[in-house]
Amino acid sequence: MAETIFSKIIRKEIPADIVFEDEQVLAFRDINPQGPTHVLVIPKEEIATANDIGEEHELLIGHMVRVATQVAKDEGIAEDGYRLVVNCNPDGGQEVYHIHLHLIGGRKMTWPPG
Amino acid sequence: MAETIFSKIIRKEIPADIVFEDEQVLAFRDINPQGPTHVLVIPKEEIATANDIGEEHELLIGHMVRVATQVAKDEGIAEDGYRLVVNCNPDGGQEVYHIHLHLIGGRKMTWPPG
Repeated sequence: MAETIFSKIIRKEIPADIVFEDEQVLAFRDINPQGPTHVLVIPKEEIATANDIGEEHELLIGHMVRVATQVAKDEGIAEDGYRLVVNCNPDGGQEVYHIHLHLIGGRKMTWPPG
Repeated sequence: MAETIFSKIIRKEIPADIVFEDEQVLAFRDINPQGPTHVLVIPKEEIATANDIGEEHELLIGHMVRVATQVAKDEGIAEDGYRLVVNCNPDGGQEVYHIHLHLIGGRKMTWPPG
């Protein structure tokens, strides 16, 4: 797959407002926030889309989700609530082809989710 | 935690349009679909909200996500795309307190996601 801007963020070649990092994932604020809190959680491994998640990625994907919930707690929005979103391909609204999990909160989310 | 309607669906005490089931998860169509495809993936284990995901649940949560992507492929919407959504607590729009992953597709999703 082609490298995306997220690979440069992982390597710290472009700046990002990083809120969490470990060996497997990086979390940083979205530059076009859709709420008071809007953080992206990405795997350091390059996985293009949700369609590319294999059985071998299940633990990594679950870890991404748990990191997002931990960031929500750190941001003080966990009790009021938040929404987690993954967009896949054009109908899903995916723009960067390195899988990423949106954590959006700090406001009341509406339904449907887009 | 209090048992929800999803526990009754898991035990087949109330009907649901089930599209996938294994030992860990159940996937069935949302009764208020927000797109041509709208499926919920739930763990058989009772986890109330995303805030309750512990390290011990990471593999299960990743499996839920991968099952959702497999259902998307089965539904024929994977290439065009889809959105995966988890709502947590009132600001997230959570209505049933048994964690569930929404798979929505078959139409172009908009931004922001609610």
